[in-house]
Amino acid sequence: MPVQQIILTDSDSDKVPDANKVDASSGMNLAGSKGWSVTKRTLRGGPSDGVDVVDLNNGELSVSILPTRGMGLWRGEYHGIPIGWNSPVARPVHPALVNLEARGGLGWLAGFNELMCRCGLSFNGPPGVDRVVDESGNVTETDLTLHGKIANIPAHHVSLKIDDEGAGTLSVTGIVEETMLFAPALRLTSTVSTEAGSNGITVNDVVTNVGGQPAELQMLYHTNIGRPFLGEGSTFVAPIAEVAPRDAHSAKGIDSFDKYGGPVAGLPEEAFFFELISDGNEQAQVLLRNAEGDRGLSMRFSTRQLPCFTLWKNTQAEADGYVTGLEPGTNLPNLKTFEREQGRVILLAPGESYATSFELRVHDTPEEIAQAESQIRALQILPPNRHEAPIERFSPR
Amino acid sequence: MPVQQIILTDSDSDKVPDANKVDASSGMNLAGSKGWSVTKRTLRGGPSDGVDVVDLNNGELSVSILPTRGMGLWRGEYHGIPIGWNSPVARPVHPALVNLEARGGLGWLAGFNELMCRCGLSFNGPPGVDRVVDESGNVTETDLTLHGKIANIPAHHVSLKIDDEGAGTLSVTGIVEETMLFAPALRLTSTVSTEAGSNGITVNDVVTNVGGQPAELQMLYHTNIGRPFLGEGSTFVAPIAEVAPRDAHSAKGIDSFDKYGGPVAGLPEEAFFFELISDGNEQAQVLLRNAEGDRGLSMRFSTRQLPCFTLWKNTQAEADGYVTGLEPGTNLPNLKTFEREQGRVILLAPGESYATSFELRVHDTPEEIAQAESQIRALQILPPNRHEAPIERFSPR
Amino acid sequence: MPVQQIILTDSDSDKVPDANKVDASSGMNLAGSKGWSVTKRTLRGGPSDGVDVVDLNNGELSVSILPTRGMGLWRGEYHGIPIGWNSPVARPVHPALVNLEARGGLGWLAGFNELMCRCGLSFNGPPGVDRVVDESGNVTETDLTLHGKIANIPAHHVSLKIDDEGAGTLSVTGIVEETMLFAPALRLTSTVSTEAGSNGITVNDVVTNVGGQPAELQMLYHTNIGRPFLGEGSTFVAPIAEVAPRDAHSAKGIDSFDKYGGPVAGLPEEAFFFELISDGNEQAQVLLRNAEGDRGLSMRFSTRQLPCFTLWKNTQAEADGYVTGLEPGTNLPNLKTFEREQGRVILLAPGESYATSFELRVHDTPEEIAQAESQIRALQILPPNRHEAPIERFSPR
Repeated sequence: MPVQQIILTDSDSDKVPDANKVDASSGMNLAGSKGWSVTKRTLRGGPSDGVDVVDLNNGELSVSILPTRGMGLWRGEYHGIPIGWNSPVARPVHPALVNLEARGGLGWLAGFNELMCRCGLSFNGPPGVDRVVDESGNVTETDLTLHGKIANIPAHHVSLKIDDEGAGTLSVTGIVEETMLFAPALRLTSTVSTEAGSNGITVNDVVTNVGGQPAELQMLYHTNIGRPFLGEGSTFVAPIAEVAPRDAHSAKGIDSFDKYGGPVAGLPEEAFFFELISDGNEQAQVLLRNAEGDRGLSMRFSTRQLPCFTLWKNTQAEADGYVTGLEPGTNLPNLKTFEREQGRVILLAPGESYATSFELRVHDTPEEIAQAESQIRALQILPPNRHEAPIERFSPR
Repeated sequence: MPVQQIILTDSDSDKVPDANKVDASSGMNLAGSKGWSVTKRTLRGGPSDGVDVVDLNNGELSVSILPTRGMGLWRGEYHGIPIGWNSPVARPVHPALVNLEARGGLGWLAGFNELMCRCGLSFNGPPGVDRVVDESGNVTETDLTLHGKIANIPAHHVSLKIDDEGAGTLSVTGIVEETMLFAPALRLTSTVSTEAGSNGITVNDVVTNVGGQPAELQMLYHTNIGRPFLGEGSTFVAPIAEVAPRDAHSAKGIDSFDKYGGPVAGLPEEAFFFELISDGNEQAQVLLRNAEGDRGLSMRFSTRQLPCFTLWKNTQAEADGYVTGLEPGTNLPNLKTFEREQGRVILLAPGESYATSFELRVHDTPEEIAQAESQIRALQILPPNRHEAPIERFSPR
Repeated sequence: MPVQQIILTDSDSDKVPDANKVDASSGMNLAGSKGWSVTKRTLRGGPSDGVDVVDLNNGELSVSILPTRGMGLWRGEYHGIPIGWNSPVARPVHPALVNLEARGGLGWLAGFNELMCRCGLSFNGPPGVDRVVDESGNVTETDLTLHGKIANIPAHHVSLKIDDEGAGTLSVTGIVEETMLFAPALRLTSTVSTEAGSNGITVNDVVTNVGGQPAELQMLYHTNIGRPFLGEGSTFVAPIAEVAPRDAHSAKGIDSFDKYGGPVAGLPEEAFFFELISDGNEQAQVLLRNAEGDRGLSMRFSTRQLPCFTLWKNTQAEADGYVTGLEPGTNLPNLKTFEREQGRVILLAPGESYATSFELRVHDTPEEIAQAESQIRALQILPPNRHEAPIERFSPR
């Protein structure tokens, strides 16, 4: 059977696809696994009411995509191991119930519980006023809310592609538009794909300026990991050119930036900013592994596409969200004004696109983890340039 | 038949319970009434679209519960007598259409029309900035919106219990979570129950701190009554230890705080704050009865659980919402900062719970009303300590 | 067959009308056309999820009404010619996803893409603080958001009437309530009707003060037209008593206020304020026609009901929304405070109503366009009083 394409959501059509499941019984055989399936369902009741979920299961690993929440990844599972974290917000929240302006621009947190959600597209840092002075001295001030809008915009078109070439690949593509009159017009086309029977998924995103004027883009992948990858004695492994604490508080933890403690109630978050070392193909790889070295999660991405990396350590009490964030981005999650000054905001001409992608792999054997770790350490020829305090290039004063 | 349990909503399950009705034809006989029924339905169209309603009917009295609006009580009916009021907001409003931040933090009013809605859980007073200084002198400022968030959070789990012991009891339990990363995490488990054939309902709430740090709790039951209980010549009867007007305007009405006039267009609201007298079981009872003494509504609650009581008199034109509020609470509905200073904010340790409950009874005979009134008046051994002006302990300057 | 009435939406009823279509096969014959139909459907997926659309098709002209968006008109079509414009917001947005408070009160723009949406009912101008001082010197300040609330409130009751008298008329009536405790209570009853086989539609609105106190009303029809009516060389034709630019920037374009250029990326919007000349029946007519004179759209309304007219010229790049607005209103779209000072805010007594209506006609022959143009020009006996700069009566300083 050739490549099969199935439309899961299409706002422009009156044909509403039913909640449905596609698997091997549909006659599509994938060499990599017989147990694959793709299910689309709509959550009902509570703050999740109306949220669509696409469960993408390659037979060994599954991930639940949230088209209604900007194509974020809710959570995954690999050989029974959960991938994600336990946020105090227990279930996906419909964007209609998230007021980004609430709590002084921190309202985004009311819906934050995903394994991976995007920060962007027009802005992706903390709340604040972005003050821009143009060549004529005209000042424009824009209120920014935490981490931008894209994670709370529903995809209006979602489709599934099943390709039986090689091991076989399942891909779900969603289109999300962040547009508004007199504002930047950015379209995200996101494809989440996985090879049948594999231990990984790949996210391929393309953001296009669909407006008539140049538009700025900021993209950061807020990838959030809890147990069993995170735990007391877990280690973050990365090929590091430069690392600095985000702020004075984080500076106190710089000596153990790559080590994790167990949950501590009330412990304030720390964040570290990195420039990573890439291989000959401009690829960087980072790894989070547990103390025992038998549970690991690695992330691979292009440092050309995503030159900035943030490590978020939020090892609060379990009940408050014990989690760490591995966050490759086009920029660091500072106020957009600062990032623009540092030359880290992308400007897209009308019609221009910017592609970003990353790969997530789950490891459940010491061998795999040791291999990933040695690949990473091989790139670390010189010791990292480690700053004891925030540096001007990374952190606003 | 033993106790029967039916799940009405479960966000975590893919099995969507259909709109459904349970009554005596299901084979469950309740001694108290043959006419009981429980119906779950979802409103469609307009601002109510997607709002779930559970109509709990004990054969004589019915009440419509709104799981989508934090387990509020929309309205009731007893022997054909309506229980509730006519708000300018005619129908239940889906929380997605209520912007709590709108109109300077008064957006809550856009959805306000219930017989009973909760104010809370993390804060329950007027909009304003809650300024907290910790032991180290660090200042935290939090923007509060009117009456808090709980009335606009949908319950993610709702179930019905039918118990044929005695007269038979119908109970609907809903679970609502007010949580967010870096914020208090409070879970409300609310059970609304009624005995078959009776004239009353009971609300039993338990709020649990599901977070990892101590969390503050404020709870107030905004119970709103219009005709026929409210009308010209209606009387509020309560066992009063102390009463004071909320503000200078209300002070002008202190002489007739317990009497109601007919609707007057443009009349500003009045509010009175009370400390009530309880019986040997720490129970207080209040009554609103009409001039004729043949329509009454009484409320009973524990002064240990709910030590504060507010009477809200809003006898505007019918079209603007002719209504009075009987409002037992853990505190008075002042800015949280003031209530904290007065020692009226509850602090829950991680995992700790606080239970509150109240009973509402409808009376449609002079005998019943006279009986309730005499019970209340029996507790009033000494005359109330009545203040002509706002007092420092109850009202911020 | 007599007049037929069909309920399309009724929030108060448990009977949910299914997505449905009515046409000549229902046995209702309309003399004007056999090809008429009325279809109700609900959009699914993306930001449009849950938005109801009523497609009103008279056999020659169709228009899509959006009950969920305050009875706005999404778009139309006449003989294959599209009526409307291409906003950067591509599809109808559910009001639950529009935060009017966002972006400094400009959040309304996140849902703005209709052929016609109403600005109002309580306020309809730009964001800002409406400061009112009453007779006693008391100051009330109200935060206003862009263009008011009505375009983002769902109609709770929608019905269809089919009348076979004459050519036959199709009418869709929706009821929308803008109410809130302690705020104005205004009800809009809007009827969109069209004669079978005709080239026009009529919008008949009645706004009623359903509150108990006097309430202010502002209504403006933001009617937005793009290609093929708008294009390089298009002309706006109107019988003009007085015209002035809104602001200093628009003043630069006063010499060609009635002419359009092609799209120019980044071109700032211009707006012109008018007092129009009406005929003996107090009717004014305006026309937008293309350069070739074979595509035209005319609007007719009462200058008694709608004494103010605004022309919005926003000839940005196509991708940014190349569009012009023909906007009859009870007032000019300035801050409400200014309009009140100028005596242009309507005050409705309790129970009082105010009716407004307009007719939209599409012309696709040079003859029709020439006829409309000559009707309009016949009223222009004296030359317009054209101001080169903003005037005090129309524009705040």
